[in-house]
Amino acid sequence: MGISEDTKPNPQSDAYEGEEMVETTGLRQRNRPNSSNGESDDQDLTVEQAFESKPIPGWREQLTFRAFFVAFFLSVLFNVIVMKLNLTTGIIPSLNVSAGLLGFFFVRMWTVALEKWGMLKHPFTRQENTVIQTAVVAAYGLGYSGGFGSYMFGMSSRIAKQATEANDPRDIKDPKLSWMIGFMFLVSFIGLFALVPLRKIMIIDYKLIYPSGTATAYLINSFHTPEGAKLAMKQVKLLGKFFVGTFLWGFFQWFYTGGDSCGFANFPTLGLKAYDNRFYFDFSPTYVGVGMICPHIVNISVLLGGILSWGLMWPLINNKKGEWYSASLSDTNLQGLQGYRVFIAIALILGDGLYNFVKVMSRTLFAIYKDWKSKSKLPITDCDNNVVSSETVSFDDKRRTELFLKDQIPKKFALGGYVCVAIISIVTLPHIFKPLKWYYILVAYLFAPILAFCNAYGAGLTDWSLASTYGKLAIFTIGAWAGKGDGGVLAALAACGVMMSIVSTASDLMQDFKTGYMTLASPRSMFVSQIIGTVMGCVIAPCVFWLFYKAFNDIGVSGSEYPSPNAIVFRNMAIIGVDGFGSLPHNCLKLCYGFFFAAVLINLIRDLVPMKVSQFIPIPMAMAIPFYIGPYFAIDMFVGSLILFIWEKINKLQAGQFGPAVASGMICGDGLWTLPQSILSLAKVNPPICMKFLSRKMNVKVDDFISSL
Amino acid sequence: MGISEDTKPNPQSDAYEGEEMVETTGLRQRNRPNSSNGESDDQDLTVEQAFESKPIPGWREQLTFRAFFVAFFLSVLFNVIVMKLNLTTGIIPSLNVSAGLLGFFFVRMWTVALEKWGMLKHPFTRQENTVIQTAVVAAYGLGYSGGFGSYMFGMSSRIAKQATEANDPRDIKDPKLSWMIGFMFLVSFIGLFALVPLRKIMIIDYKLIYPSGTATAYLINSFHTPEGAKLAMKQVKLLGKFFVGTFLWGFFQWFYTGGDSCGFANFPTLGLKAYDNRFYFDFSPTYVGVGMICPHIVNISVLLGGILSWGLMWPLINNKKGEWYSASLSDTNLQGLQGYRVFIAIALILGDGLYNFVKVMSRTLFAIYKDWKSKSKLPITDCDNNVVSSETVSFDDKRRTELFLKDQIPKKFALGGYVCVAIISIVTLPHIFKPLKWYYILVAYLFAPILAFCNAYGAGLTDWSLASTYGKLAIFTIGAWAGKGDGGVLAALAACGVMMSIVSTASDLMQDFKTGYMTLASPRSMFVSQIIGTVMGCVIAPCVFWLFYKAFNDIGVSGSEYPSPNAIVFRNMAIIGVDGFGSLPHNCLKLCYGFFFAAVLINLIRDLVPMKVSQFIPIPMAMAIPFYIGPYFAIDMFVGSLILFIWEKINKLQAGQFGPAVASGMICGDGLWTLPQSILSLAKVNPPICMKFLSRKMNVKVDDFISSL
Repeated sequence: MGISEDTKPNPQSDAYEGEEMVETTGLRQRNRPNSSNGESDDQDLTVEQAFESKPIPGWREQLTFRAFFVAFFLSVLFNVIVMKLNLTTGIIPSLNVSAGLLGFFFVRMWTVALEKWGMLKHPFTRQENTVIQTAVVAAYGLGYSGGFGSYMFGMSSRIAKQATEANDPRDIKDPKLSWMIGFMFLVSFIGLFALVPLRKIMIIDYKLIYPSGTATAYLINSFHTPEGAKLAMKQVKLLGKFFVGTFLWGFFQWFYTGGDSCGFANFPTLGLKAYDNRFYFDFSPTYVGVGMICPHIVNISVLLGGILSWGLMWPLINNKKGEWYSASLSDTNLQGLQGYRVFIAIALILGDGLYNFVKVMSRTLFAIYKDWKSKSKLPITDCDNNVVSSETVSFDDKRRTELFLKDQIPKKFALGGYVCVAIISIVTLPHIFKPLKWYYILVAYLFAPILAFCNAYGAGLTDWSLASTYGKLAIFTIGAWAGKGDGGVLAALAACGVMMSIVSTASDLMQDFKTGYMTLASPRSMFVSQIIGTVMGCVIAPCVFWLFYKAFNDIGVSGSEYPSPNAIVFRNMAIIGVDGFGSLPHNCLKLCYGFFFAAVLINLIRDLVPMKVSQFIPIPMAMAIPFYIGPYFAIDMFVGSLILFIWEKINKLQAGQFGPAVASGMICGDGLWTLPQSILSLAKVNPPICMKFLSRKMNVKVDDFISSL
Repeated sequence: MGISEDTKPNPQSDAYEGEEMVETTGLRQRNRPNSSNGESDDQDLTVEQAFESKPIPGWREQLTFRAFFVAFFLSVLFNVIVMKLNLTTGIIPSLNVSAGLLGFFFVRMWTVALEKWGMLKHPFTRQENTVIQTAVVAAYGLGYSGGFGSYMFGMSSRIAKQATEANDPRDIKDPKLSWMIGFMFLVSFIGLFALVPLRKIMIIDYKLIYPSGTATAYLINSFHTPEGAKLAMKQVKLLGKFFVGTFLWGFFQWFYTGGDSCGFANFPTLGLKAYDNRFYFDFSPTYVGVGMICPHIVNISVLLGGILSWGLMWPLINNKKGEWYSASLSDTNLQGLQGYRVFIAIALILGDGLYNFVKVMSRTLFAIYKDWKSKSKLPITDCDNNVVSSETVSFDDKRRTELFLKDQIPKKFALGGYVCVAIISIVTLPHIFKPLKWYYILVAYLFAPILAFCNAYGAGLTDWSLASTYGKLAIFTIGAWAGKGDGGVLAALAACGVMMSIVSTASDLMQDFKTGYMTLASPRSMFVSQIIGTVMGCVIAPCVFWLFYKAFNDIGVSGSEYPSPNAIVFRNMAIIGVDGFGSLPHNCLKLCYGFFFAAVLINLIRDLVPMKVSQFIPIPMAMAIPFYIGPYFAIDMFVGSLILFIWEKINKLQAGQFGPAVASGMICGDGLWTLPQSILSLAKVNPPICMKFLSRKMNVKVDDFISSL
């Protein structure tokens, strides 16, 4: 569901909505041509036959030093990118393709270099590639599920100041590197143990699809066939070009940002009037890239949401200033116009989330029920009730199953691990968050495996991880339980973190098992790789957040470069959770109800009408994001969408093969530039020039002022 | 010699220096692949054989309405472009390729459309294409030889104000549409008659090469073979894309220019310190395009000149402020720093011009002498003493000669025309310019045919038209004759115009005859086309200048968008001509001598060392231009050069085929945008936003000021 505040940068995160797998797994689809060298589904027999001659390394041999060395650097890179996305809009596309490509590229370079020196001992295998992929995904996944753009940052005083209540110290916990890393270590591993015993059921018996995992496996398999490697090198080359170009562009832009609202990021591309309503192209390659990766309907939904809110509703509500809310309130006060922005966005997100939660849940239960009823390995259906697998076991399936079952992870180990980590968490977490009682955590950990299973199952069917929806569920339940006062808000946010982490990592792991299954990587090496990746993520993600937090002073401030929209949204959800809709401005609640039901209704219509029509119906959750932060990034994404659209019109195959590479290059390059940018900022090196935009009249005054100096 | 204040946008103007035809006729060379479908020199026989089946229209039929209709619009477009170039830097690349391409494209569209309607009476022939080409070149040539960026504008009070003396009304004539058009009509036709009788000698007997004319003919011939048309359409398509893109870019830029030094044209791309010394990339597609068309050495020379002057010399001289010149003088005063800028540039230009004048002249005389001595049609040698033609007459030559001699222009007609126009000029011109006595003009017209022949012959050998050097000769001789006071400066500038026009149009015509010879176009239709083109140019060029003059108030002001550098250079040459080096600032004359001799020396070295070395020696005249106006355009050109260089490295053939099309698209698109821009300016529609660049410190002050409003 790669495109909403619910977004999580994991294999599941690319498609927005489950049911339309064809449309929503756009990236996957586009990647298919990469790997279709005789590897498409109908010719499935050939894949493992093609690889049959190649020896499969033992699971320990799959875990090489070079793999984790490369994974570490990619984890830093992708954590920076994810953090930037977290803190700007919260829209995070799938970076798996980049991770796969870059992982392949670096280890390939490594091995080619060693080969030249005659020092290569082990060739680069697809299993090793899968290990890198898994570790990187695990590590940068924590950048999202760690809540640095949502619940964790929502605890800070900077965000609390912007809310109307719960500003007392009991409800606030400011970011600090020490407790953040500790918290990450406490909550991030338990999800790994939760579902490990069920992997055979889900991967082999249920034959769940995991579209992203499957696509990644296709990609990796294709890289390791000779022609695939050729295409991959071409893609990497293009990715590299855009990477360098975007990095240099970021560097260039930097020089002109010596002051508030200076530089290209504040370019009133559509005029000053439009700029005041946050309609402008801000020259951000990241979101152009995001727009190229996201399905067109998502980009259009975001743009529509922006036009509806900042083009129509907010100006209209602004006219009611003094009537609906006090005219003396500043623009960013939650009891004023900002309240409408935040709470209507929350209503949309909740409406969409709830609808999909119920939908996926009921489907999951229904599928399990059917499976239980038939009491045998009957063909399971995907979300569109098509038969997914057939009874005849192909050569590939046989070989894959055989290898998948070879390396077992003892059930006792999994269970023991879960209980141990749970006990440590229950004991330790209340020391970090005073209001988070130990029995809240216990209850959470009792229910967590069930929810984790639901999520992993749903993601397997629909490619849609609902992690943040489960997190919100925790916010409301624990929030209501903890009650107002005595730090209920903090408890709710912390519980959200506990829940999100389990649910998210569990479905990640299962997705990786699917990839491993298809690339003949051992489940054990997958598991170890995920653990190592998680360890890296537990350290890297908080450090990267800390870098941003220290380098940019206005993080989390509305209207700044890093508004971190979800932080305030999550905190306000927690406030609503503990004490209801008390302090909302006039008519805001009515509007919220309206939008909540509109979201449900739109989703219902999307599901009921045929695909041909539904593909043109906007997605409410995507529409909600610009409600709060403004439509400027929507214009970037629309530009990206447009570029891809035209490219597809000109050369569909080429766009499919190279579009994601270009987009990844832009996202990675821009993301990496953030690193030196933050370091410069920390070192107090300020850009020398301000590129300023003034109206003609104002310019005359300013010119007079300057010449009078 | 397309790259200096001497530059003239005619077929000769592309190559910078005669001797290195291989290097300097870069565009030609690059265009060869277009036309090399079995048309290269060694397979020359095939061209006319390939066309043999096609009927050749009579000379009247070659002059179609559609040809002149298209020529008219292209003339307006190219006059706007040339005027813009005149008024910004005076560097004008050859636009012949664009003219050829666009002429072909529009008439092709016309004929294809008519063909579909079944209304096409006459097919589109290469002769017709040559007619368009000739008319357009004649028309936009007047944009240059009319002196709107040099002598004509140099007469105005706006330029006179910037000079130190000769500011009294007798030496000033402000632009007015009426007298400018009159003057153009009086001086522009005489050149056509001057050399018409000699065309057989020069084209058939001497077999002069006229590299640009030859290349244009190749281009046109190739367009009219089937494959050639295909490539041409591809080129036109690319040209069109860049045309539209650049036009839109110009439109976009416009919105941000609401004030002085606002917008992309003042982008301190290399920092504020560099900007103060006029080192910045000003996002001008025109000069990027110019850089792509000009040979690399020209671009590098210009950049070197910029670094030498604005990077080194002016800052050093500025340190002598108060010592070498009065510290109280403003930066644009000719007795201050500006004086060094202008006069050192003049010294370089004169040194280079004089050297080449002597060189070409002596070669011309030597060649004629040799020819006269041998008293027969012995093989003539080109500048490198290679045998140009062989005695064996090829099929092509035979056929071409036959057709070239078919339509004669009576010698009496030419002589009569020359005498008539001369008499009218001698009688009328003194009424326009009081100080220009009738006997000055008479003397000029007595010598003009000889100089015109020299120039046409030299251009035929070396592709280098020395028109503006002959103009300068007139400035100094007539200036000295007229003497100080009593309007000597005005007389000198007017005489310059008289001389430049004759010399320039004469060599244009001969160049066109060469093109016509090679495309089997009748000399008569060439001549008529040139006359019609000249008539169009006589009206269009002054009108376009008038548009600029009225629309932009700061034309001719140093440091503005349109500094018109050559206007002040020409006026100051006239001042020096009438009264010597009186008022130059301290040490300026010494520096001038130094640079004058340096220019001669560098040229001498360029001629003496082998090509391998000389191609890396900068060209003094190209270096002189940034001395006065600053190196910002040099950076644009360098960028263009770099783009082409990289393109050539990647795909030489493609770069050769499409580089000129891209460059032409950029130049034309940017040029055309100037038209709506001036109209908006005339209509007092001002851009709404100012994109301003402030230092960080200044920005803090300005922000305080704005918030205090």
